[in-house]
Amino acid sequence: MRSAFPRTALLSASRASRFLPAHRPVRFYSIKAEAASHSKQRPMDASRLTVEKTKTPKPLSKPEDLVFGKQFTDHMLAIEWTKEDGWLEPRITPYQNLSLDPATCVFHYAFECFEGMKAYRDKNGDIRLFRPDKNMARLNKSAARIALPTFEPTALIELIAKLTKLDARFIPAHRGYSLYLRPTLIGTQSTLGVGAPGSALLFVIASPVGPYYPTGFKAVSLEATNYAVRAWPGGVGDKKLGANYAPCIVPQQEAASRGFQQNLWLFGEEEYVTEVGTMNMFAVLKDKATGQKELVTAPLDGTILEGVTRDSVLQLARERLAPEGWKISERKFTMRELAEASKEGRLLEAFGAGTAAIVSPIRKISWKGELVDCGLKETEESGEIAAKVKEWMEAIQYGDVEHEWSVKV
Amino acid sequence: MRSAFPRTALLSASRASRFLPAHRPVRFYSIKAEAASHSKQRPMDASRLTVEKTKTPKPLSKPEDLVFGKQFTDHMLAIEWTKEDGWLEPRITPYQNLSLDPATCVFHYAFECFEGMKAYRDKNGDIRLFRPDKNMARLNKSAARIALPTFEPTALIELIAKLTKLDARFIPAHRGYSLYLRPTLIGTQSTLGVGAPGSALLFVIASPVGPYYPTGFKAVSLEATNYAVRAWPGGVGDKKLGANYAPCIVPQQEAASRGFQQNLWLFGEEEYVTEVGTMNMFAVLKDKATGQKELVTAPLDGTILEGVTRDSVLQLARERLAPEGWKISERKFTMRELAEASKEGRLLEAFGAGTAAIVSPIRKISWKGELVDCGLKETEESGEIAAKVKEWMEAIQYGDVEHEWSVKV
Repeated sequence: MRSAFPRTALLSASRASRFLPAHRPVRFYSIKAEAASHSKQRPMDASRLTVEKTKTPKPLSKPEDLVFGKQFTDHMLAIEWTKEDGWLEPRITPYQNLSLDPATCVFHYAFECFEGMKAYRDKNGDIRLFRPDKNMARLNKSAARIALPTFEPTALIELIAKLTKLDARFIPAHRGYSLYLRPTLIGTQSTLGVGAPGSALLFVIASPVGPYYPTGFKAVSLEATNYAVRAWPGGVGDKKLGANYAPCIVPQQEAASRGFQQNLWLFGEEEYVTEVGTMNMFAVLKDKATGQKELVTAPLDGTILEGVTRDSVLQLARERLAPEGWKISERKFTMRELAEASKEGRLLEAFGAGTAAIVSPIRKISWKGELVDCGLKETEESGEIAAKVKEWMEAIQYGDVEHEWSVKV
Repeated sequence: MRSAFPRTALLSASRASRFLPAHRPVRFYSIKAEAASHSKQRPMDASRLTVEKTKTPKPLSKPEDLVFGKQFTDHMLAIEWTKEDGWLEPRITPYQNLSLDPATCVFHYAFECFEGMKAYRDKNGDIRLFRPDKNMARLNKSAARIALPTFEPTALIELIAKLTKLDARFIPAHRGYSLYLRPTLIGTQSTLGVGAPGSALLFVIASPVGPYYPTGFKAVSLEATNYAVRAWPGGVGDKKLGANYAPCIVPQQEAASRGFQQNLWLFGEEEYVTEVGTMNMFAVLKDKATGQKELVTAPLDGTILEGVTRDSVLQLARERLAPEGWKISERKFTMRELAEASKEGRLLEAFGAGTAAIVSPIRKISWKGELVDCGLKETEESGEIAAKVKEWMEAIQYGDVEHEWSVKV
């Protein structure tokens, strides 16, 4: 699949340095990779990891100065894949730029998918990941959908754990803080024909982050978007592809221009409620006839991102709310249903759910000229369930309670 | 919008060299850009172009060895944009890698759009672009849809003309050959928050290409895809975004695994015919009652790429076929309609249309277990209209006839 055409000096560097600046080659790695070039496709193998530590450690930012996804740790993890050889040696190197041919397919055809996950420091100082198996499974599903290579989940978890431990000093020992981890898989073939990439790069970068709501919850207001559609049946809206994100910005800006913090994605003539900005959406409804409380979220019908937080909220609610008489529903629900429930005082609360904020309480939703009230009192920034869910989730994430979802590294 | 966090040495280079390797800074450019950092947003300005010629010109490939999008010319055009300053000085430099922070938004959220256009050498040796204004207009529409900056079309055409002339030696003086130009616009902000990029890079690379069918037309067979959906009303399928391409590969591979060269995208329960692989789709039908011939293609309803070749075919057909009694239609048509017409001998031919091949004749379409015959005799590789359209288009593209669509550079 490689070009026979003589490339520039910058590009003629060894395979190992194809994506890292030419003045920083890792020679022994290059030689090993060349020697293996006729072997069969190799699986991802954490035992082959090489680590090059930085010689210029970064100063730590003050915790209060952290901004989501702006500051990064000293190191990154990088694993190249080629069609001929499979996964090459994993490498932890100093955080550095990628050097890529301008014809690389990630720039043209969006061969890219990613995950968002977090590492937490517990009260003993240990580092914990939250349900990393879910992120690995989703990344593999995303990769397969766009013809990128899949990998062994346990191998990548082990490698991410090593990166996390190496850069553990960046995780502040304060509640609400964590290390946001961003595994990213990109196609790296540098030809313009539209086809499955013959090479790829999986990298992981890490960004220390503070609490999403440093001074406590702050409820947001949404604008329901019906002029643009995020996802559709048979499409790729349930995968964590880069392709699903860039088209969301303009509707988000439109909502912001009218004073709403996020947009709410509706689907179809029925105006089904699907997602909030880049979060899953939950509502708490009271049944008109029986008064039974229901926690409802849209089903995984291919148009909804399969959120790890969404799944966790559902599981915890089934364990802890269902025994108290709650109904926990994954079902389609419409904006009209929310509006009616609101008018009748039966929309008790609503919130978005995602890795960044865990839950994001919603005050009101602008829809067809009306403002749908989501049940919060003027003095409240969160409903009871949103607050409970956040507490439950953090207790597990920070290891206050032992739970199989929290994995010490 | 920029991180206040100290970056690595590689990243602390001047703005001008942010995306080009650190050992190749263009000093005077950097200084100018800094000096302008408090001015208002500037428009793209071709008169500010700087040119750095390569010191190591590439040898030319033999024309017969050219593979689409694999070989590139000596130079590239690059124009950076920042929210603060607007479009910075355009630069033509040696073709070289881009050096990008791994947090750059193009890798995560698919902030990327592109164009495909060609430069042709005419019989006098002059170089001609084909309808470059259409490509510029579409690139601006694509950019605006994903919150990337727009630009002055005439400025970019002028800059592309300069790149084309500088690398004109790569365009073989043979019919069927051309220089494929790939303007690409990517978001370059290196933070993980999902929002409008505060910086971007527009670059143009050029690849000499040979005739799509070196030994004459070769008709393809298609598999109609109904398990995956390329585009949706209110989605972005009518824009030339990277996001629309990666999800197409698996359905294409599925079709190939069953012996079909391309897939045909259907839409909805009605199974409307939309696009062929990455081309627009045309069919020639004979009316059941009147016998009138109809050239039909799907309308621009937001689910169809607004192809420049599609538009050109329609215009030429309206000028040259309509006076002969043809009906030229942009309307919805279904797979069932094609299948019925085929059975009744009224599907005279079908073809895809796009920049790469101009037209790609279709022999048959696999749909729900049947093979829909598209009207070619076994010994034929093209219908009459596909062959005519190719001839008409090439006569204009290669300047055999003077036409406003063909622009000398």
